Amino acid sequence: MTPEQRAVNTIKCLGMDAVQQANSGHPGMVMGMAEIATVLWSDFVKYDPNDAHWMDRDRVVLSNGHGSMLLYAALHLSGQSISMEDIKQFRQWGAVTAGHPEYGYADGIETTTGPLGQGFANGVGMAMAERWLRENVSTDLVDHYTYVMCGDGCLMEGVSAEAASLAGHLKLGKMIVLYDDNNITIDGRTDIAFGEDVCARFEAYGWHTMRIDGHDKDAIRAAIQAGKDKADKPTLIACKTIIAKDAPNKADSSSAHGSPLGEEEIRAVKIAIGMDPDEKFIVHDDAYAHFRRRHAELSAEREAWNQNVAASEAGAKLVQYHEAPDVSAVDWPVFEEGGSIATRSSSHKVLTAIAAGIPNFIGGSADLAGSNKTKLAGGDCSRDSFVGRNIHFGVREHGMAAISNGLILHGGVHPFCATFLVFHDYMRPSVRLSAIMHQPVNYIYTHDSIFVGEDGPTHQPVEQIESMRLIPGLWVMRPADANESSVMWKVAMERRDGPNALCFTRQNLPIMNPELTQGAARGAYVVRDFDGSQTKQCILLATGSEVSLALQAVDSLTAEGWDVRVVSMPCRELFAVQDATYQASVLPRDVTTIAVEAGVRQGWTGFGVRGALGLDRFGASAPGTIVAEKLGLHVKGIVEQVLKNTLQ
Amino acid sequence: MTPEQRAVNTIKCLGMDAVQQANSGHPGMVMGMAEIATVLWSDFVKYDPNDAHWMDRDRVVLSNGHGSMLLYAALHLSGQSISMEDIKQFRQWGAVTAGHPEYGYADGIETTTGPLGQGFANGVGMAMAERWLRENVSTDLVDHYTYVMCGDGCLMEGVSAEAASLAGHLKLGKMIVLYDDNNITIDGRTDIAFGEDVCARFEAYGWHTMRIDGHDKDAIRAAIQAGKDKADKPTLIACKTIIAKDAPNKADSSSAHGSPLGEEEIRAVKIAIGMDPDEKFIVHDDAYAHFRRRHAELSAEREAWNQNVAASEAGAKLVQYHEAPDVSAVDWPVFEEGGSIATRSSSHKVLTAIAAGIPNFIGGSADLAGSNKTKLAGGDCSRDSFVGRNIHFGVREHGMAAISNGLILHGGVHPFCATFLVFHDYMRPSVRLSAIMHQPVNYIYTHDSIFVGEDGPTHQPVEQIESMRLIPGLWVMRPADANESSVMWKVAMERRDGPNALCFTRQNLPIMNPELTQGAARGAYVVRDFDGSQTKQCILLATGSEVSLALQAVDSLTAEGWDVRVVSMPCRELFAVQDATYQASVLPRDVTTIAVEAGVRQGWTGFGVRGALGLDRFGASAPGTIVAEKLGLHVKGIVEQVLKNTLQ
Repeated sequence: MTPEQRAVNTIKCLGMDAVQQANSGHPGMVMGMAEIATVLWSDFVKYDPNDAHWMDRDRVVLSNGHGSMLLYAALHLSGQSISMEDIKQFRQWGAVTAGHPEYGYADGIETTTGPLGQGFANGVGMAMAERWLRENVSTDLVDHYTYVMCGDGCLMEGVSAEAASLAGHLKLGKMIVLYDDNNITIDGRTDIAFGEDVCARFEAYGWHTMRIDGHDKDAIRAAIQAGKDKADKPTLIACKTIIAKDAPNKADSSSAHGSPLGEEEIRAVKIAIGMDPDEKFIVHDDAYAHFRRRHAELSAEREAWNQNVAASEAGAKLVQYHEAPDVSAVDWPVFEEGGSIATRSSSHKVLTAIAAGIPNFIGGSADLAGSNKTKLAGGDCSRDSFVGRNIHFGVREHGMAAISNGLILHGGVHPFCATFLVFHDYMRPSVRLSAIMHQPVNYIYTHDSIFVGEDGPTHQPVEQIESMRLIPGLWVMRPADANESSVMWKVAMERRDGPNALCFTRQNLPIMNPELTQGAARGAYVVRDFDGSQTKQCILLATGSEVSLALQAVDSLTAEGWDVRVVSMPCRELFAVQDATYQASVLPRDVTTIAVEAGVRQGWTGFGVRGALGLDRFGASAPGTIVAEKLGLHVKGIVEQVLKNTLQ
Repeated sequence: MTPEQRAVNTIKCLGMDAVQQANSGHPGMVMGMAEIATVLWSDFVKYDPNDAHWMDRDRVVLSNGHGSMLLYAALHLSGQSISMEDIKQFRQWGAVTAGHPEYGYADGIETTTGPLGQGFANGVGMAMAERWLRENVSTDLVDHYTYVMCGDGCLMEGVSAEAASLAGHLKLGKMIVLYDDNNITIDGRTDIAFGEDVCARFEAYGWHTMRIDGHDKDAIRAAIQAGKDKADKPTLIACKTIIAKDAPNKADSSSAHGSPLGEEEIRAVKIAIGMDPDEKFIVHDDAYAHFRRRHAELSAEREAWNQNVAASEAGAKLVQYHEAPDVSAVDWPVFEEGGSIATRSSSHKVLTAIAAGIPNFIGGSADLAGSNKTKLAGGDCSRDSFVGRNIHFGVREHGMAAISNGLILHGGVHPFCATFLVFHDYMRPSVRLSAIMHQPVNYIYTHDSIFVGEDGPTHQPVEQIESMRLIPGLWVMRPADANESSVMWKVAMERRDGPNALCFTRQNLPIMNPELTQGAARGAYVVRDFDGSQTKQCILLATGSEVSLALQAVDSLTAEGWDVRVVSMPCRELFAVQDATYQASVLPRDVTTIAVEAGVRQGWTGFGVRGALGLDRFGASAPGTIVAEKLGLHVKGIVEQVLKNTLQ
């Protein structure tokens, strides 16, 4: 057999062997896409075998991440990462070869995939980052493709539809999708639920589409080349394939999707394709050689690129853009005490300052730029030009978040995105992935409580803030005023190991003393302390707009004989990592402590909290202050909580 | 002017007046869709002015719910509900005319809309329910249309894409969508982010599409009629409209989307369209007359239908199907103590029993029927025949949940839907709406913890269970064994005022005593009580698979000198509504109580809980028992928690 065919067969065998040994996994897709993977990596993908982090490498995303062994086999064969020992450890504790590809586990895994549709949308974000850098830094130094492999499941998910529509609109010509069109999903043939004409749909989005036989290596080669040649449209190549091709009993069947084929069936496949049925986890030299025959050429290309980077201003800029944002270059706004302003508006002033100091800080909103206050100077990223800072994501929250993951994973830009807080729910699967991947995407969520008012329960977040705090690694920030907004934005921009959710009000809030609010940088701090005027002590622990409400309650409590401390906690997670001495100094356990937040009370535990004022129901349509009053979010409610929960 | 034009103008004026008086709201869409609404309701919609709950009425959904005044005006003019006083109270506390249409507030509001795309998908569910009843009960008695109005935003959302693909696949010929194609979104013209050919996309899904001038009443009439005539495909009518039409300064501008036009502009509009600029909240008799001219005919139709229902077996069946499910008709499975079975498998036995007793219990999975164990006897709802029980939703979790809301809102069927628990995140916005609308949709979530194992962190739910408990009105059920599964399914089927999330394991669990597990019906109960053998007492409060883990810890704790009670809490919300005496008898506050659940610990407060064993991180890829061991979810972990949190 030809070296190319040997490479194809090797991928198939590694896929079958690893899944069989793990006694779990997804062999069918690996076998169905083996030709596609072989042609893609050995003929097209631009990578440096010696440096997986080459900025100008092509990005390859396996959106149908359950076929992870396809990626691991290709990374092994091409010498990018993944040892044979890793492959033998597939799906075991501590292995880099996890059940689904996990970003950061090994070089060449460009994103975590598995939840369907996400990788596709990540790819759109990567292609957008490439285009932004190409048009804003250098067309010479930035010139690479984004390849996405995906299956039927990815294309049934709404998140991919949202991202595909935007990609077509923006003419992302350097994105090429290889669609494993095998007519099989877990529950059977796609004709039970998926009768649409996928290519026609993508044409409607503005994509270039082709249909090919996904096992015909020459057809695959020609189609990818045609996709590269089509500069003004993204390309979808519908590759008609047979799942578990060459398996005598399981080919073209959903039974091959998610279970090992069985030793006997594997032997039969190996015999059918001319491989030795007695060999396992074997790679012949010709397969390695085929995958690596461009290595010298790729290294030379990388070497030339290195020299261009070293020799040019654009190169220095590009390198700098790939580093952490320089927060010292930002003139962080300070707001004069007194007066009042909505935190969404103070956030806008901070965003403007960040954008002025950090030239590759880009982002936008899901059609709420005016409401979220996210518009930056410097124009838009439009279909005709990416020389701009504002991305119009359209009414596509889920796609927006998944694209933002793609932007940050690509590198070179520092993205933010925005919508109403209540619509965090629409994008939650992608926010979870930001957290799993430890990516510092900044999510802006405005209209952060029932104070939204008239739009009613569907637009009033109640459970969202606490639900975000449940996601491991996501930091939820809810500043109490303009100055806390500035401090929290700085914390967010400095953070490198996970995403942040910045929650802002629609309504105005009094501006506090800017020196005092520096305390926000520790997650929680005292904004009004005991004055010794009374013998009974209590602490009101509030967030966001409820800090000013808590301050309003001080007089009433003093009149009842209480000496009151008010603590603002703009970020629970940040306070939780402060040293115990500081924590105890802010929230001593022997004082009656009441949490106050315009959301469900469920999560207010720990920190010595004895009771909470919040909402255990959805909101209602009426002016925001009326809603708050009717639902008990008022000074009287705070006083009642203190009286009811007094520590003996 | 003609009565029809008067009706159009009246809608426009009511929309402008109400928004202006509320000083908030969305006038532009009301003005742009006034002709469409007039033609639809006065010429086509089948309703009984005397009974809003006529089962065979057409369903009308305003998916672009921000234009709520359009619906309120139409319901007022057609005499279905909404008084002039209601309109004057638009967006005020306690008014039925909330900012967005709220289901249950007034007759004729068929669903709660506002979060974009949801209403569209609800409409697909309604059309599916109609088809199911038509094919399973009576083609004579069930024969109505589902009309959906929507805007650009609805069609940018992934949830509508998912639902539209399924609707086209299933050939839902009695669904007609009127798309307000006004080229304007909040952030400006749609060409900033939405350049796709919507009609071509829908054609690719298998829809019948038309493009018309949305202000041409005869064209609207002809198009709706053509949609009705097209029996084998759903219809999308792209109505080219001008937002805030006739507003001299704000027409065709995003500024007309979400703010009052201003008194001056409103006067100018009224003059331009021939209405009295000095009149507010006025409806002339000819407008009423135009909207109501079919009333006699509609009443006669309803009368004839009534007689057919009364005279036929099918009629009796139809009426029965619209009532609460008769849980006494179900032979609830009881599982013999001993042995072990995964709760997803026991759930399947219960599902089978429910389906046998309740003939209109239908549902399905998002392409995981085999894994979720949801397959029922009786065939599928396929594109060619709905004589079946199983719905194949495809890999479309969000669309599935929104469609399920539509199924239940339509009435006549009792729906369930299913996916992996971790993918609750994909459908969360629709689950929230089930809760807001108090609809008893049953959500099945299998693979409910890190015990999923090898598929790794993207497939292991960690924060999902607690995040669901945050949604007001959603009951989260996590049975500990086969018998609890049966009990909790019964509780779920009996519940009429809100949705349930039923969480099941992939892994086997020991089967407990079926008499003992009847206690699950109170939300929490003692499964192993103190035996007086030791002086120190502690309670292990566990859910789902951790109940058997807690039982395993009893010996170790006894050896350490503890007398142990184990409490199973399959539904925290259900326990929370038990009487205080029962609560205290199960969980006395003066005993050291440790919660044990394979999820984030954050929500474990109340009930006297002193500490919790759980996970504050994402999972990992490895066999499930290894993952649990590595992450500390083991007997030793429980013992440590008890020692660490002992009540003094």
